[in-house]
Amino acid sequence: MTTSPLKGRIYPGPPKHDPRDSISTQSWGFEDTTFAVDETGAITVTGDRYAGLSGERLPDLLPWFRKVVGIDFPLESSAGRFVLPPVPQPRQAQGFLDEIRKTVAEDQIVTDSAVRLRHGHGHTVSEINAVRSNGFERVPDYVVYPKDESQVAAIVRAAAHHNVVLMPYGGGTNVTEALRCLPYEDRPIISVDMTRMDRIEWIDPVNRMAKIQAGAAGRLIQAQLAEHGFTMGHEPDSVEFSTLGGWIATNASGMKKNRYGNIEDILLDVTVVSALGKLERSQVVPRESIGLDPKLWIIGSEGSLGIITSAVVKLFPVPASREYGSVIFRTFEEGVAFMYDLAQQDSYPASVRLVDNLQFQFGQVLKPVSHGTKRLKSKAQKWLVTGPLGYDPNKMVAVTLVFEGTHEEVDRQERMVYRLAKRHGGMKGGAENGKRGYLLTFGIAYIRDFVLQHHILAESFETSVPWTQAQSLIDRVKKRIYDTHAERGLPGTPFVSCRVTQIYETGCCVYFYMAFYAQGVENAVEEYHHIETAARKEVLEAGGSISHHHGVGKLRLPFVSDIMSPAMERWREQVKCALDPQNVFAAQLPLEAPEHAGALT
Amino acid sequence: MTTSPLKGRIYPGPPKHDPRDSISTQSWGFEDTTFAVDETGAITVTGDRYAGLSGERLPDLLPWFRKVVGIDFPLESSAGRFVLPPVPQPRQAQGFLDEIRKTVAEDQIVTDSAVRLRHGHGHTVSEINAVRSNGFERVPDYVVYPKDESQVAAIVRAAAHHNVVLMPYGGGTNVTEALRCLPYEDRPIISVDMTRMDRIEWIDPVNRMAKIQAGAAGRLIQAQLAEHGFTMGHEPDSVEFSTLGGWIATNASGMKKNRYGNIEDILLDVTVVSALGKLERSQVVPRESIGLDPKLWIIGSEGSLGIITSAVVKLFPVPASREYGSVIFRTFEEGVAFMYDLAQQDSYPASVRLVDNLQFQFGQVLKPVSHGTKRLKSKAQKWLVTGPLGYDPNKMVAVTLVFEGTHEEVDRQERMVYRLAKRHGGMKGGAENGKRGYLLTFGIAYIRDFVLQHHILAESFETSVPWTQAQSLIDRVKKRIYDTHAERGLPGTPFVSCRVTQIYETGCCVYFYMAFYAQGVENAVEEYHHIETAARKEVLEAGGSISHHHGVGKLRLPFVSDIMSPAMERWREQVKCALDPQNVFAAQLPLEAPEHAGALT
Repeated sequence: MTTSPLKGRIYPGPPKHDPRDSISTQSWGFEDTTFAVDETGAITVTGDRYAGLSGERLPDLLPWFRKVVGIDFPLESSAGRFVLPPVPQPRQAQGFLDEIRKTVAEDQIVTDSAVRLRHGHGHTVSEINAVRSNGFERVPDYVVYPKDESQVAAIVRAAAHHNVVLMPYGGGTNVTEALRCLPYEDRPIISVDMTRMDRIEWIDPVNRMAKIQAGAAGRLIQAQLAEHGFTMGHEPDSVEFSTLGGWIATNASGMKKNRYGNIEDILLDVTVVSALGKLERSQVVPRESIGLDPKLWIIGSEGSLGIITSAVVKLFPVPASREYGSVIFRTFEEGVAFMYDLAQQDSYPASVRLVDNLQFQFGQVLKPVSHGTKRLKSKAQKWLVTGPLGYDPNKMVAVTLVFEGTHEEVDRQERMVYRLAKRHGGMKGGAENGKRGYLLTFGIAYIRDFVLQHHILAESFETSVPWTQAQSLIDRVKKRIYDTHAERGLPGTPFVSCRVTQIYETGCCVYFYMAFYAQGVENAVEEYHHIETAARKEVLEAGGSISHHHGVGKLRLPFVSDIMSPAMERWREQVKCALDPQNVFAAQLPLEAPEHAGALT
Repeated sequence: MTTSPLKGRIYPGPPKHDPRDSISTQSWGFEDTTFAVDETGAITVTGDRYAGLSGERLPDLLPWFRKVVGIDFPLESSAGRFVLPPVPQPRQAQGFLDEIRKTVAEDQIVTDSAVRLRHGHGHTVSEINAVRSNGFERVPDYVVYPKDESQVAAIVRAAAHHNVVLMPYGGGTNVTEALRCLPYEDRPIISVDMTRMDRIEWIDPVNRMAKIQAGAAGRLIQAQLAEHGFTMGHEPDSVEFSTLGGWIATNASGMKKNRYGNIEDILLDVTVVSALGKLERSQVVPRESIGLDPKLWIIGSEGSLGIITSAVVKLFPVPASREYGSVIFRTFEEGVAFMYDLAQQDSYPASVRLVDNLQFQFGQVLKPVSHGTKRLKSKAQKWLVTGPLGYDPNKMVAVTLVFEGTHEEVDRQERMVYRLAKRHGGMKGGAENGKRGYLLTFGIAYIRDFVLQHHILAESFETSVPWTQAQSLIDRVKKRIYDTHAERGLPGTPFVSCRVTQIYETGCCVYFYMAFYAQGVENAVEEYHHIETAARKEVLEAGGSISHHHGVGKLRLPFVSDIMSPAMERWREQVKCALDPQNVFAAQLPLEAPEHAGALT
């Protein structure tokens, strides 16, 4: 690390890569963390990464889940073994490769099948299912790992000369099929993996800004900024793996946005290599009015307008105080009323999340076995809450809270929150449950891929909606999923659950979780998509958005015409064509041809 | 007013137009408010609109200003008489007019010379000077006043058919020459005055949103929302006259942005009639991720992509408490250090502004004559501050404060602010001075046009800059203005002053005021532009932006290539061409031809 005497800027060295942080190529997350079944039939979690989950036995999980889906399904003995599916041969792209070899080294160009496969998908259930079965008709033909901006520029120039497609790749965590390669794309497809551009170029501690390369993953950014007393405060569920470039490209939202803002609030400047050349600025200012501002067009561009190479973001001091908390309410409706009132306050906790009853139960069965006095205490608490205090275990819901700020601010928010909760019949659930609830986000992301091995198709999707429509949207979407599941004659009962993850003065973000048992179901993934599409239609009809922060990708592109006028769609098409006339950045479907979306499913 | 039982939406009727609110066509502001000189030679202010200024005599102002510019200039006896300058004949646009007459009534099409003149300029010194002398080579040929969105759509369609130019007009308050008509524009130019579309379409009190037509002026929006207990919180200096559409088109900032955010934070949805059709959405949600988002392209579009017809904005409850305050500091540097520390707090007052010593003095001489005990008290205070307390009247500066929020929040912020101020050697200056300082913004806007009658050219310009560069930028820009003034051999000393009007964690907005006496100066306005251009160059070299919130217009377009890469400029051109291929909305110069900017000066 060096410090510039001129401007007080800090120049951190490259990030430290922990060799234990090896990332799985066929499932979500780190390789050391997996869910498995032990000899007693209980679910266990490997590794030691996630406190309260890793290394634990979860004896209650499987019986509970069997009860919820109404099927006493068997566990698959073959689960966990991964066989590489067929991966198509790379297409010829000799001219392109020859040209970029003048700039990039041989080890920056990869043709390995497993690597190419990994770069051709994100984490939708159909993608992970394909990885584990028949693979994809098309994956990137080459994966290139640029080390700096000039290499990105050389790659983009070569792509234009030689008529190949570039698809930027960050953490590969999207759930929008953004990385899927279109079978009808005739040109060679090159995945541009940005993760070797993962440095913090500088930290300006006085002006509270940092310039960070686009391929830096959230956990690396967090660790390095923390060394200097700062945080970006941006914590999407995928923060361990997703990258700064991905956050900007998908218009991401963090779990602590109440305190730190969403990505658009944090972003001060962005550098992009586009088909028309490099977008960059000679200055970074706190706020400006410069007429048409290309920076704004990059937000949510999902890889279709160019490759984001770096950005300048706002920093916040690491908060002096962080406290967790939780509150239980008798009903979901009371929980929503509390969330609404909280959102009308001038200042509220960094993170506030309301889980419905099914998800509350899910959190309970995810608790490891407790022993001795802890077990007794826990049993006594449960008896008290569900007995004399009258909280119905099949109706009660919970809110988890993360407070960050000065000690004084955290104290004040705590007092306000618990006072407000009481008014809505809420009762403190303790800091431990709050912390567990918040951190569980990172751990439960692994469950989907585990249950998939046992023929359970599961996924989450999210939306945003004004407050007055939130409850009816939730009711309607849940009903639509149950109804569609029944109409399709699928076995058992679907698991349908939701949580309110973000609050605004004007509305909230709602996350749905759905799963169903699909052993023996013909075209199970298609059935899944059928339900998901029905649910999304219901979301839109109930006043919800296409997405709060996941984005559109290829998965939700067919819905865009439902939410905007034809002229607005035409604007999108015209801008795409004007800024990338050769469609080098064909990461998204050609906007003018959404009917091709069917080609993927 | 009606209330919808379904959604709880409120439908206010049309706004009440106060017949006293007649707006001047040749100066800033309301017609009832002017600065004049009475028989004793003292400056007086007409009307009763601005407390502490209207109806008052300001005996100290003229002597002080003569001292500052170093010239004991005479007052002009002819001042105040307005003669309409030559206004060019309207060009033929028969086809266009015939077509729109199918949709709009005859009283919505105006060819009156004074009206056309007014629609061809904003409020730069050169524009107001032209209005009062030789007029413009080109003004709009017709002014059309649509009453609803369908009429706007008809006008835009007709414009495309008949090859005419449309320039949207809101409050006409811009200071960027955005409304100037280009002499080399061959096509007829139609000003589309949006002020008859000034309704609040609905207020959604639960979801805290309102849909408002784009031509609604700030004062009308404020008054109507207040009736229902709400505010947008958006208070640019021009809030009395500027319109919602103008705020969006110029990416405006309000004086209370610390509490309510800038326009981009308040905007939830926007409806636009573009050359490709109407941009509109079927839903309004608190936040979303929809890929390329045309809403973001409209922010800062300055009339070049279409006509904004309405927008949905966030609302805030009218604050329970509003308190004013002020603090004096010994030096500007101490004031800046205080502002920086304040911006690092989690929560700070709605408005915080630091004025430099010259502006502080200006504020003093703008005080009306006081009498009796008030006069004695004021004299005693001045003696105490500048005597025993040691504040140098030629160095001291002031911060004015507006606190808004709950009583508890305002109390807390007050305690924090004054504690912090003390640490920087600041001393409380009282609530009255704070209120006066805040409200003076609206009154002093009239002074520029008054002094212009007496051969003083005066204007303000603004920028934004990171904190570490703020002081050096201010020093450099002031020096550059003094130096350029001297180099050009202009008489006397220029008046150069600044204030910090907005604070961010990362930097601040700085407003400069400059004036010089120009009686007898050949091409005085050109000299003014020469100094202004030099100052703007210095701003950019010192790390400042082209504009914090005024925008680019035609005035600052030549500087855009200084702040962005050629590819970024090309993006702007390509988007403009793609979305308005006929250049119907030629409000801005053709982006590809900034050399034409010279045609205006």
